[in-house]
Amino acid sequence: MRVGILGATGYTGQELVRLLSNHPAAEIIYLGSSSTAGQPYAGICPQFSAENLGLLQDETVPDGVDVLFCALPHGITAARARGFLERDIKVIDLGADFRLHRAEVYEKWYKIKHPAAELLPQAVYGLPELHRKEINGKSLVANPGCYPTATLLALVPLLRAGLLREDSLIVDAKSGVSGAGRGASMGTHFSEVNENFKPYGVAEHRHTPEIEQELSEAAGRELVVSFTPHLVPMIRGILVTIYAEIKEGVNESDLRAAWGESYQEETFVHILPEGVWPQTKFAAGGNHAFLQLTLDRRTGRAVIAAAIDNLVKGASGQAIQNMNILFGLPEDLGLKGPGIWP
Amino acid sequence: MRVGILGATGYTGQELVRLLSNHPAAEIIYLGSSSTAGQPYAGICPQFSAENLGLLQDETVPDGVDVLFCALPHGITAARARGFLERDIKVIDLGADFRLHRAEVYEKWYKIKHPAAELLPQAVYGLPELHRKEINGKSLVANPGCYPTATLLALVPLLRAGLLREDSLIVDAKSGVSGAGRGASMGTHFSEVNENFKPYGVAEHRHTPEIEQELSEAAGRELVVSFTPHLVPMIRGILVTIYAEIKEGVNESDLRAAWGESYQEETFVHILPEGVWPQTKFAAGGNHAFLQLTLDRRTGRAVIAAAIDNLVKGASGQAIQNMNILFGLPEDLGLKGPGIWP
Amino acid sequence: MRVGILGATGYTGQELVRLLSNHPAAEIIYLGSSSTAGQPYAGICPQFSAENLGLLQDETVPDGVDVLFCALPHGITAARARGFLERDIKVIDLGADFRLHRAEVYEKWYKIKHPAAELLPQAVYGLPELHRKEINGKSLVANPGCYPTATLLALVPLLRAGLLREDSLIVDAKSGVSGAGRGASMGTHFSEVNENFKPYGVAEHRHTPEIEQELSEAAGRELVVSFTPHLVPMIRGILVTIYAEIKEGVNESDLRAAWGESYQEETFVHILPEGVWPQTKFAAGGNHAFLQLTLDRRTGRAVIAAAIDNLVKGASGQAIQNMNILFGLPEDLGLKGPGIWP
Amino acid sequence: MRVGILGATGYTGQELVRLLSNHPAAEIIYLGSSSTAGQPYAGICPQFSAENLGLLQDETVPDGVDVLFCALPHGITAARARGFLERDIKVIDLGADFRLHRAEVYEKWYKIKHPAAELLPQAVYGLPELHRKEINGKSLVANPGCYPTATLLALVPLLRAGLLREDSLIVDAKSGVSGAGRGASMGTHFSEVNENFKPYGVAEHRHTPEIEQELSEAAGRELVVSFTPHLVPMIRGILVTIYAEIKEGVNESDLRAAWGESYQEETFVHILPEGVWPQTKFAAGGNHAFLQLTLDRRTGRAVIAAAIDNLVKGASGQAIQNMNILFGLPEDLGLKGPGIWP
Repeated sequence: MRVGILGATGYTGQELVRLLSNHPAAEIIYLGSSSTAGQPYAGICPQFSAENLGLLQDETVPDGVDVLFCALPHGITAARARGFLERDIKVIDLGADFRLHRAEVYEKWYKIKHPAAELLPQAVYGLPELHRKEINGKSLVANPGCYPTATLLALVPLLRAGLLREDSLIVDAKSGVSGAGRGASMGTHFSEVNENFKPYGVAEHRHTPEIEQELSEAAGRELVVSFTPHLVPMIRGILVTIYAEIKEGVNESDLRAAWGESYQEETFVHILPEGVWPQTKFAAGGNHAFLQLTLDRRTGRAVIAAAIDNLVKGASGQAIQNMNILFGLPEDLGLKGPGIWP
Repeated sequence: MRVGILGATGYTGQELVRLLSNHPAAEIIYLGSSSTAGQPYAGICPQFSAENLGLLQDETVPDGVDVLFCALPHGITAARARGFLERDIKVIDLGADFRLHRAEVYEKWYKIKHPAAELLPQAVYGLPELHRKEINGKSLVANPGCYPTATLLALVPLLRAGLLREDSLIVDAKSGVSGAGRGASMGTHFSEVNENFKPYGVAEHRHTPEIEQELSEAAGRELVVSFTPHLVPMIRGILVTIYAEIKEGVNESDLRAAWGESYQEETFVHILPEGVWPQTKFAAGGNHAFLQLTLDRRTGRAVIAAAIDNLVKGASGQAIQNMNILFGLPEDLGLKGPGIWP
Repeated sequence: MRVGILGATGYTGQELVRLLSNHPAAEIIYLGSSSTAGQPYAGICPQFSAENLGLLQDETVPDGVDVLFCALPHGITAARARGFLERDIKVIDLGADFRLHRAEVYEKWYKIKHPAAELLPQAVYGLPELHRKEINGKSLVANPGCYPTATLLALVPLLRAGLLREDSLIVDAKSGVSGAGRGASMGTHFSEVNENFKPYGVAEHRHTPEIEQELSEAAGRELVVSFTPHLVPMIRGILVTIYAEIKEGVNESDLRAAWGESYQEETFVHILPEGVWPQTKFAAGGNHAFLQLTLDRRTGRAVIAAAIDNLVKGASGQAIQNMNILFGLPEDLGLKGPGIWP
Repeated sequence: MRVGILGATGYTGQELVRLLSNHPAAEIIYLGSSSTAGQPYAGICPQFSAENLGLLQDETVPDGVDVLFCALPHGITAARARGFLERDIKVIDLGADFRLHRAEVYEKWYKIKHPAAELLPQAVYGLPELHRKEINGKSLVANPGCYPTATLLALVPLLRAGLLREDSLIVDAKSGVSGAGRGASMGTHFSEVNENFKPYGVAEHRHTPEIEQELSEAAGRELVVSFTPHLVPMIRGILVTIYAEIKEGVNESDLRAAWGESYQEETFVHILPEGVWPQTKFAAGGNHAFLQLTLDRRTGRAVIAAAIDNLVKGASGQAIQNMNILFGLPEDLGLKGPGIWP
């Protein structure tokens, strides 16, 4: 497979390059960047000094690319996607343009007109563990957001099994700073972020409708969630803590059984031993998700936690997992390795 | 006032010394430590090299102490408290021994027999903004836990005003590592904690009954809460994110009004301008609490956040605030300064 | 004293406000800022919510200011200084404009023409422990740079005593990120800085001629130093590690004696007990400097270390120390407190 | 190759497992641990949940092991090494027991009698880029220390080429906390280490004689160095800043040429473009070393910097590189990947 990357110097772009460097069936033939075209990639990103990645190119995607990863701000990929598809380039969008099935929801939360609403029906929401069969054979994959990935892995099996009260879901989410991308701002300034913890985007974060779309589909009815993201003074990692009231008669083993059925064959989703709670570092650098739950009898609520690396399972690793599916390769090809500790 | 400190080399002990160094009416005459008696205090804690604090003493409290801060593990203060009180020493316990009104609740959560249950009726729960009048004139103050301080400042006025559904309260709490004290363990090891985020004590943390006791009192009925603490890779700071369903007919301005009435005269509690959410660093090193809320019409839930410095308003600063009340001094004496940023 | 601050929202500006909040003889009557004039200071800097600091003003310094702290980029203060001095406003410049005695040295290293070379003779280099008598009575104080403060406190007494080989001095310096100021850039981006360590400005940092000027003066002859700054993934703190060959016949006690004579009466300079090496956190938030040295017999070199808080003794605290001297106040007024640990 | 690891749960042990998981020619058949034998490895180290690594075993090394990595405290490996060698197990010691050629030097710095001085002649100092030919065919490899690896890569080519004054070498070294291992202590406590920077082991660190042995060999004469390690508040990474006076007539291009000749064919050593200085994060997670230097004409000194990941090129990655050499495999097998950024 000949691979291209648009947005190659951002954090998800760099992470694609890192992971693809170890992928036995992928060859990177195009690294596109709007701002640094013409410079050696290893000059911008010296961690790649031992790879021979050549120069960054402008944003004109060359012929010969089989699959294109778009790691661009929302709005931009959608505007160019039809052109790529017409050239038979498979498109994996790491941005938000094709995640929401309905253009009006996109327009409400992202505040711009959708540039390619006509393509939405052919896009697939690329969370392999939950939508594997639908991804196969597609040409346009909407790679899920980082918060939704963690949240959906935790909740979808429980909602599909009808174990939770659909109107009770609260997702308290925490992310490392790399989720905000590589742009310099007061919000990413070391002296403002380190030794600090804060919520942001309270009751208005754009991952909310994405989570609700997928959870509603799993539950078979429309639902809303309380979703509050927070910024953790660390680079990588997402952990979501979820509170859900259970339906009458449900007990903890029912919850575990629903997870077990969904994930026992999965390479990348790990239900931790009882009492061991996820830590973001379990997943750092790896394409893995870690889950745990307990049913608190005092309150009647399940407390559920999921941890991933936002740049891997929450972005670039999952994108490569989708690529493997699109091309009929073993899904874990080039992705198997463990995370990095400490 | 002649002040003594038991547990003077722990983090709350050091923080008491730091704050009392700037207190115009307090003189530290006793610094007690079980493990380092006989050594110069500034040898153990070189940040005090400019103060003349002399030697650490053993745990025998000398005569002449007017007020004794006990920064000791739970169980130990209770065993010694009667002796101090009989010597007319006022006791401010930074530990958990006198926070719970009922010995059986203490025994259930702390797994030991209460060493001085007979003193519980004369102890007061020392959260000045909520119990100021009761503190005045007492000799035994139970200084609140760090998580409870943040949680109660946020919720008590709203419950007293009858605005929240009492069975709906969820407290998702995040703390810096200093809350775990100065003991070295894998759980406080830099390489295990940094670049990591995790929940701990899920559904079983000992601050739960303390929060429930005070919230039940505010609500006028027994209630339970979901309480989940998390460890943030930073030294200082607590932020709690609280989810609460509102009673019918309540709107956001009712919630703000209840806070406003409670806190408009307070020096240390700050309701931030709408849309500005608390950050732990706002409070770092200062005795301040910062609050914000929003009513999410989509879900019908209030989302509430409060931030404090766990070692100041969550421990040593609040203890000095209590001391000031006990001795009829201006409550903010020696505590007025802002936090430290960045 | 009525105090004004130009550049009130930068890190050294905020630190001036924090320290002056506790100063019994200073009243802040003017907070100037080019970019945020008209906004409440506590809106930009919520840690000051309990102070009544009013609105930020533009850069027009009002009448009635007795002393003006200029926390501005180099070049700007010099251009305005004459005007302030003519209005009998004492000027303490936290920038670099008046630190170098010779305009041509300034112009070589700062690459601009000096805007007020004629004022250089009346400026004093405001390192109180080394130049106290010269500061007294002046109207224009050049507050030293952060790296020079740490370096000079360590070396000047040893050079004055003629103990070191003047051509052998190597200063390997390490600073927290706040030294780079509040501007957002890739170089201060959390994800680029955290879990990272790097040198910068190798053999070309602008603090080099400042260090050399003062060391040459102490040694009584021109000398040059190797000076290499590094960026540490922390907010506050500077530590310099210095290597110096000793003159023949010198031993470690001679070195200690020279320090002892210089600093035994000093409030803010602490020679640690033998074997205890400085840590930046000893000084965090306080106006203190911590020193240690050893004479390595194997190599014939003294290894010397000094630690300060770059924003306090390395900037705003020292500036207030200078203010106290200018106005005949006790030099440690409002500055006495210990640092903050942990 | 069937691989065994003694000390499998320490940081270098975990790093060996991570790297070997991606090695196509190595199979881990033995994971030994004194304290956690009998437990599932992925229970202790959940980042390996997707690998099937089975149970930890006690410290009895089973038959069938071709190569044994010893990641143990000094003194222990030496005591057991003869037994392993007699069983035809190749031994790669990540500890210090076989690094120093002379037992009396070991005994002076490590304060214990060498348990197997008779084996020293058959041990090889395993820094492949500098001793590749000597490693080939050996059975006992002393894997270099982390500080020495960075220092020697920077200095050996320059000394071999006779460009530096041998008595002028100063190595100011900085390391992340993982270098101190996994033991919990005040020195690794998050609240003591974060936002802090300090020197330690000044003029007495045990890597000093190791550095001196190898540099003396390169220079062809005995030399001593000033070596000062510092602790950086980060997990991984070492950066050394080196000061060296040049011999008369030497210029910067001579220095670069000596590096170029040594490293132009090397996969893992990267001379950065002029003006780009190493950062530890360039190497994080990868087996790479990054170098830069400048000749400061003002002082006549070369300033040289080198960065590695202390756990990879400074320990486990280099150990696998040595394994590859011992078994005649391509030296970069399983090690080629880039580091991880951010």
